[in-house]
Amino acid sequence: MIVVMEKDATPEQIQHMTQRVEELGLKAHVIRGTERTVIAAVGAERGTMQESLASGPGVADVMPILAPYKVASRELKPEPTEIKVGSFTCGAGTVGVIAGPCSVESEEQIIASARAVKAAGATALRGGAFKPRTSPYSFQGMKEEGLKLLAQAREETGLAVVTEVMSTDDVELVARYADVLQIGARNMQNYRLLEAVGKVPNPVLLKRGASATMEELLLAAEYILNEGNPNVMLCERGIRTFESHTRFTLPLATVPYLHQKTHLPVIIDPSHGTGHTPLVTDMALAAIAAGADGLIIEVHPEPEKAMSDGYQSLTFPQFETLMKKSRRVAEAVDKKLG
Amino acid sequence: MIVVMEKDATPEQIQHMTQRVEELGLKAHVIRGTERTVIAAVGAERGTMQESLASGPGVADVMPILAPYKVASRELKPEPTEIKVGSFTCGAGTVGVIAGPCSVESEEQIIASARAVKAAGATALRGGAFKPRTSPYSFQGMKEEGLKLLAQAREETGLAVVTEVMSTDDVELVARYADVLQIGARNMQNYRLLEAVGKVPNPVLLKRGASATMEELLLAAEYILNEGNPNVMLCERGIRTFESHTRFTLPLATVPYLHQKTHLPVIIDPSHGTGHTPLVTDMALAAIAAGADGLIIEVHPEPEKAMSDGYQSLTFPQFETLMKKSRRVAEAVDKKLG
Amino acid sequence: MIVVMEKDATPEQIQHMTQRVEELGLKAHVIRGTERTVIAAVGAERGTMQESLASGPGVADVMPILAPYKVASRELKPEPTEIKVGSFTCGAGTVGVIAGPCSVESEEQIIASARAVKAAGATALRGGAFKPRTSPYSFQGMKEEGLKLLAQAREETGLAVVTEVMSTDDVELVARYADVLQIGARNMQNYRLLEAVGKVPNPVLLKRGASATMEELLLAAEYILNEGNPNVMLCERGIRTFESHTRFTLPLATVPYLHQKTHLPVIIDPSHGTGHTPLVTDMALAAIAAGADGLIIEVHPEPEKAMSDGYQSLTFPQFETLMKKSRRVAEAVDKKLG
Amino acid sequence: MIVVMEKDATPEQIQHMTQRVEELGLKAHVIRGTERTVIAAVGAERGTMQESLASGPGVADVMPILAPYKVASRELKPEPTEIKVGSFTCGAGTVGVIAGPCSVESEEQIIASARAVKAAGATALRGGAFKPRTSPYSFQGMKEEGLKLLAQAREETGLAVVTEVMSTDDVELVARYADVLQIGARNMQNYRLLEAVGKVPNPVLLKRGASATMEELLLAAEYILNEGNPNVMLCERGIRTFESHTRFTLPLATVPYLHQKTHLPVIIDPSHGTGHTPLVTDMALAAIAAGADGLIIEVHPEPEKAMSDGYQSLTFPQFETLMKKSRRVAEAVDKKLG
Repeated sequence: MIVVMEKDATPEQIQHMTQRVEELGLKAHVIRGTERTVIAAVGAERGTMQESLASGPGVADVMPILAPYKVASRELKPEPTEIKVGSFTCGAGTVGVIAGPCSVESEEQIIASARAVKAAGATALRGGAFKPRTSPYSFQGMKEEGLKLLAQAREETGLAVVTEVMSTDDVELVARYADVLQIGARNMQNYRLLEAVGKVPNPVLLKRGASATMEELLLAAEYILNEGNPNVMLCERGIRTFESHTRFTLPLATVPYLHQKTHLPVIIDPSHGTGHTPLVTDMALAAIAAGADGLIIEVHPEPEKAMSDGYQSLTFPQFETLMKKSRRVAEAVDKKLG
Repeated sequence: MIVVMEKDATPEQIQHMTQRVEELGLKAHVIRGTERTVIAAVGAERGTMQESLASGPGVADVMPILAPYKVASRELKPEPTEIKVGSFTCGAGTVGVIAGPCSVESEEQIIASARAVKAAGATALRGGAFKPRTSPYSFQGMKEEGLKLLAQAREETGLAVVTEVMSTDDVELVARYADVLQIGARNMQNYRLLEAVGKVPNPVLLKRGASATMEELLLAAEYILNEGNPNVMLCERGIRTFESHTRFTLPLATVPYLHQKTHLPVIIDPSHGTGHTPLVTDMALAAIAAGADGLIIEVHPEPEKAMSDGYQSLTFPQFETLMKKSRRVAEAVDKKLG
Repeated sequence: MIVVMEKDATPEQIQHMTQRVEELGLKAHVIRGTERTVIAAVGAERGTMQESLASGPGVADVMPILAPYKVASRELKPEPTEIKVGSFTCGAGTVGVIAGPCSVESEEQIIASARAVKAAGATALRGGAFKPRTSPYSFQGMKEEGLKLLAQAREETGLAVVTEVMSTDDVELVARYADVLQIGARNMQNYRLLEAVGKVPNPVLLKRGASATMEELLLAAEYILNEGNPNVMLCERGIRTFESHTRFTLPLATVPYLHQKTHLPVIIDPSHGTGHTPLVTDMALAAIAAGADGLIIEVHPEPEKAMSDGYQSLTFPQFETLMKKSRRVAEAVDKKLG
Repeated sequence: MIVVMEKDATPEQIQHMTQRVEELGLKAHVIRGTERTVIAAVGAERGTMQESLASGPGVADVMPILAPYKVASRELKPEPTEIKVGSFTCGAGTVGVIAGPCSVESEEQIIASARAVKAAGATALRGGAFKPRTSPYSFQGMKEEGLKLLAQAREETGLAVVTEVMSTDDVELVARYADVLQIGARNMQNYRLLEAVGKVPNPVLLKRGASATMEELLLAAEYILNEGNPNVMLCERGIRTFESHTRFTLPLATVPYLHQKTHLPVIIDPSHGTGHTPLVTDMALAAIAAGADGLIIEVHPEPEKAMSDGYQSLTFPQFETLMKKSRRVAEAVDKKLG
């Protein structure tokens, strides 16, 4: 921690802060500059220290030196984590592709989708049974009925199932039917839910909140890892910015940045990240070129009639084209798809 | 709903969309312009319609005409809602002031805080027992023990108690001890939690998520109202923007804007909204001048030793000054404080 | 400057960076922590140093300690700067009010506006003669003809004239007619223009760019001050964020923050800052309560027929009400208006 | 234009607005819904109409239907524009690569850079002679001396020269030495400058402002096109968001989006877009996969000693690697590099 004192900090204030640093168990190095004094506080930084020091008298700023996440850190585990579950693999050279409708709507719809995405090369099936909707008046999902249909689709196609869990009350239920538990962007900082999915054996797909920083995302992962579940996939699905021509802004630099900081795989969601069908395929290709470990794509038999997210869903033929192009780009960056 | 067709939309596409509009139970008016055609779809708009129409062939854009929230709407209930609970009143000309420490840390700390904020004129006590923390390694709150201390502080001072609930599992417990249930910014779209607090009799303080739009905030309130709980206070606590000299950006135009759209009272949190003690008082005064129905302020006996948020907490004397100044500004805008 | 080395930085890299720091004329203090090494580089920081050190081998981060602006800094000049020009005063306890139409449109319009805003208590007249418009097909202003009309309005009312200059080519011309030169938000980092207005005697109203940080704003002011013009007013007119219910997001914490950092006066523009007439007055009051040294308000005889910005302009009676309310709020914070 | 009336708009207000629409030369279609009335205003929309209608009595919202840019529009010119100047081609299947140092610093530096980037496959040389710097105390460029060195580098290598022009005063001078004139992000809405470069024969590289919308970018291009210069390249260099782990957020969805809306080529700048050398190459590959028509990359013989932007510059070997990988990705999306 670096404690930067105000330009006109008094010797008493500097003395006081030096003592505070030592009280917190850190070693203080006082450096007197021509214009101001800084105190370097060396040792194991902990959560509350920065806050506490920042409210001291005569303090202008406190800058942490160490990353606050530990288990997720690449410094702790340098080799990338590969996640395998049923038909699905991602990380360490393999780009896993999760595809399917936004919501499970009927047996016919989910089975047809599962078959189509499998035929095109996807290795996992997505489909929402519990749907977090902005409006209480929108379709809220088929709930357990939807989970059963997903399980049936897995039986028929062999595809691993990825689906969202929205509440601690449902973790056990969803974990029974699904292979991978998805934490949606709106719940990225629902800490009780993160702890709950940290206690089940299923891998977790953790979506970045629409205004979460990289540090907040990694600390959310840390909540899960800290409970003993080592299989966390980080998912970039776009952030909220002033841009309005896309639903969200999809910042692909997340991929190489996270690869520097963490060993966890990084999945890209170009469907939510753009919010417009005509932009999805190009952004999927860009994600692979940027080094993504996986994709999650919305596909629907008839997007126009979808109960949610139709405007960002691909038709079956569109998804087939995406997969063909993706395969070529993956090869160009020495990776394999699926 | 206004369906704007692409410039080169074919007569078949226009025909198809007109039919889709009618299928959805709306009346279609086709307006042929010099450059493109638009279809005005008149009738009761519902959640999924916009999505569905937007994915139709030849459609450039779909623009809704009606606000998607109903019960929260000022059109439905033109007079402002006043909320009263124990010592606390806000709305309709009264500026309620909630003050106290970020976290309950000890009996001594919470009782001293309650007495000090009451003496200065606050009408409710805040204090976190369940704390949503970015890092799993930070202090997580005293939980039920903290709730008991809050209840004890109410007994000793008569102040109504406002405290956060983070999980559906805890709603009943927190509702037993607290007067007002706070939904934190990170949980603004935790819909199961919103439904749960919609079922208890306690008023709810709903904080705006750091990247939530006005519509999303009002729809989150709608989740609570829709369960039968009419007492929702909306709280602006700052949004995430590119600004880094403050912790969040506090957009006070929220106040007059929401007063146009909804009858629910609007509370401002200048502590989180700025993240820096020296900015809190000026922004509290600005909030009152902008028409806020209440303030929520972090106050701590010794901010430097606070277990959380010390850098944005006021000391007792600082809070006393804030209240004196606030009283004058409230009078200048024909309101009364407390 | 604090140079934070990577966790696995080699002794050679640390040695190399220590040498680089000394080469740049700073004194290096090497602090070896339990997890990583930091080098405190003490001395006069200059523009390029941070950039240069940040690209060194084994460097994780470089954190500056000193503010990069000098002349604008409150550390250099602790007492607030008061700016007086003709009828207009702002700063040091006086809230100056600049009002008038977005664009000068005709003699009748500008003279009527000048009389009305003067009668209501404004102390300067605004009006655009050179208009920066997003579209080349929009009204671009009356140019010199507009300047003449502004000068005529000054003669008739005694109000100081504030108007925008968009190009170095026009600085001399505009400075001849106007009292205060306005630099628009889009030109905040048009450095040649900043230098040019730094060379004339007129005070300058420098608007914050829609995505400028506080540091960038202060450095833009520094460009002007550095040329010898000491009379710069900083103007907050809203930033671009994800919010769409207002035209921009108006962050009033700018006011107390800038008052900490600089001696220059801070003016608030609630017209552009909200973009909606019904929000302007409340935000003007909030600005005064937050400590603003001035307001700039768009007023038009008939907003509906304005050639620009009608949707955010006040009518004459609306402006009169704003002034009455403003006077009361100014008194409540011990300031005087006008 | 769609004029949405307030729910409680009176028949007089609806009548008044219908008349206003007709006065503006549009045809009004009044559509009475169950909850509110909308007026569809059909005809040629012009700049000021929306503003004017939005300030009418009883108006809730005005939504334009037509894009405000014309010459830049894909509707006007469906086939993509290819730009060729000297050694450089971009658009219509060719990915042009512009590379070189941020600033021209010396003969040795620019000649060495030109040779290295040419050897690696770049087809144009970048280098700043006039530098827009945030601080007046930073290196401001070698000015005309720098232009001469760029021309000399062209002579020695045959590479087309791309360099920034910051002021109308310098357009003629820079146009004499450079092949392509760059308008920097800070000057994207410096309209006098846009008009000036619209009058010279050189192609223009127009960088998106850090908070510019797509519409504002296309309208800025329209200022240039409208003066008669048809050769405009649009350049995405990152936008300002809450993200702080990168210097800017680089939204690659800009590429397919702009390709839908305009025939102009789209260039990506991953150096400014990320601000960190280790992220540049992956984002360059992603840009190509997303369909970019060109790249602009900062390369320096010794980034650590660069006078600007060293932390985001590639070394010669790093650039060589970038080009090798880029070639493979370009082939995978059926394009050719250079």
